[in-house]
Amino acid sequence: MTNGIRAIRTLRQLRAQVAAWRAAGETIALVPTMGALHEGHLALVRLGRQRCRRVVVSIFVNPTQFAPHEDFERYPRDEAGDLAKLAGVGCDAAWMPDRGLMYPDGFATRIVPEGAAAGLESDTRPHFFGGVATVCCKLFGQVAPDVAVFGEKDYQQLCVIRQTVRDLDLPLEIVGAPTVRDADGLALSSRNAYLTPEQRRIAPELNRAITRVAAAVRTGAAPAEAAAQARDDIARAGFSPVDYVEVRDADTLAPATAGGGRSLRVLAAAWLGKTRLIDNVAV
Amino acid sequence: MTNGIRAIRTLRQLRAQVAAWRAAGETIALVPTMGALHEGHLALVRLGRQRCRRVVVSIFVNPTQFAPHEDFERYPRDEAGDLAKLAGVGCDAAWMPDRGLMYPDGFATRIVPEGAAAGLESDTRPHFFGGVATVCCKLFGQVAPDVAVFGEKDYQQLCVIRQTVRDLDLPLEIVGAPTVRDADGLALSSRNAYLTPEQRRIAPELNRAITRVAAAVRTGAAPAEAAAQARDDIARAGFSPVDYVEVRDADTLAPATAGGGRSLRVLAAAWLGKTRLIDNVAV
Repeated sequence: MTNGIRAIRTLRQLRAQVAAWRAAGETIALVPTMGALHEGHLALVRLGRQRCRRVVVSIFVNPTQFAPHEDFERYPRDEAGDLAKLAGVGCDAAWMPDRGLMYPDGFATRIVPEGAAAGLESDTRPHFFGGVATVCCKLFGQVAPDVAVFGEKDYQQLCVIRQTVRDLDLPLEIVGAPTVRDADGLALSSRNAYLTPEQRRIAPELNRAITRVAAAVRTGAAPAEAAAQARDDIARAGFSPVDYVEVRDADTLAPATAGGGRSLRVLAAAWLGKTRLIDNVAV
Repeated sequence: MTNGIRAIRTLRQLRAQVAAWRAAGETIALVPTMGALHEGHLALVRLGRQRCRRVVVSIFVNPTQFAPHEDFERYPRDEAGDLAKLAGVGCDAAWMPDRGLMYPDGFATRIVPEGAAAGLESDTRPHFFGGVATVCCKLFGQVAPDVAVFGEKDYQQLCVIRQTVRDLDLPLEIVGAPTVRDADGLALSSRNAYLTPEQRRIAPELNRAITRVAAAVRTGAAPAEAAAQARDDIARAGFSPVDYVEVRDADTLAPATAGGGRSLRVLAAAWLGKTRLIDNVAV
């Protein structure tokens, strides 16, 4: 591709580029990522390109959403590879701030999301969504996009970001993009790179189990019973521990109640060795 | 005045008005208030008008910055009087959202400021700055102004808002405006309306005492000793209790250290009967 990607590393350069696009009457989509880009991210970029004239992809491995025992240090990083991938899919600029730019000395502001952030991921990662909401609010303020695109793969994150934008009246639209999967159903994830061949063989059972939950609930099964069955299935396949399999309201993530007539979502998280996988499907 | 003020009560109307101004290439200043407008507020509007072509004044008595025992219910409200005052000073629109618009069912997001929010007001009002930062972030997202004007009268609030805007990269500039005072030095405040004639006579001693602290520190006195003297003076004048008199770094509000060469600020809060007064001056 001759279409080189511009890597922007200072806020001054970013704001100048955005102002130039605005002056030309162009709309802007933001795709926030932590790099280690795969086909799932590229689908987000393509969706942003459908919605807006310009697409900015941010690449920042955000330390505040990792707990001390988590994989911040070993999280995969491949800047050159990321930029090469972005060149092929209509991305106009990569926004690559460093840690000192995002969290300078004296940084002292947190966003604390409740509601959709309660339970599920927060049960094992209590500070995760605070870190995500805060860094996304910063990225939205830096780029000032018309839309920001997030994958449904991280479904609770998508709900929390929608809630944050709604509650703080941030002037942009959040767009969710369907999960991209391998042929056997495994959701694409940068963390799949951690899996051994044997774990990779087992991994698709997570998606199969929650797909069975969705089918069962759709045909009248009690959500709690279907979810319990899936937890057994996933554990038997070799996941340990199974953090959760839950059926929730698709918008608020409140626990599913019988006969509500609301849209529902099945969400799950479980471990294969040292790697934690998550997935979700619509009922 | 024939220059009538437009009262806007829906987000759709607000965004349409702002978009029309933007389309015409006009800049916008926001002056956030809780109504009960006095000459101090009008000075903020005039300053906004110097900086921008359009000025929006928001009027919203924000419940989340009052504790249950505080004066939310009896806080002075005078919508017709406020609109009449704004008509004379170059305000283009009054943004008057109701509580349901600002905090609908399901609202679940808080901004938690630390740093400049630590101590001083927070010692007696621990949730105050969280409420202020959250509602201001909402107002900034709703109005999307180029600048927002805040009075130095609420100096810690000004510092916390600057910190919030900086930390979250919100795309606007915060402008501080000097405190407007009565002839005897009392800082204008909506809460001065609560004072009895006798309390009103005593009230200016708060400003006199902190002005003496500033003069003493400027000429070499130890900040802690000068502040202690002022606490005694204020108590002797009839204030009870004296919540604090402190000398702080003028930007970070960190406690003043000896021989720092940094700008300093003297801040105080004390009660006259059931009314709490605050004031501050530069060293």
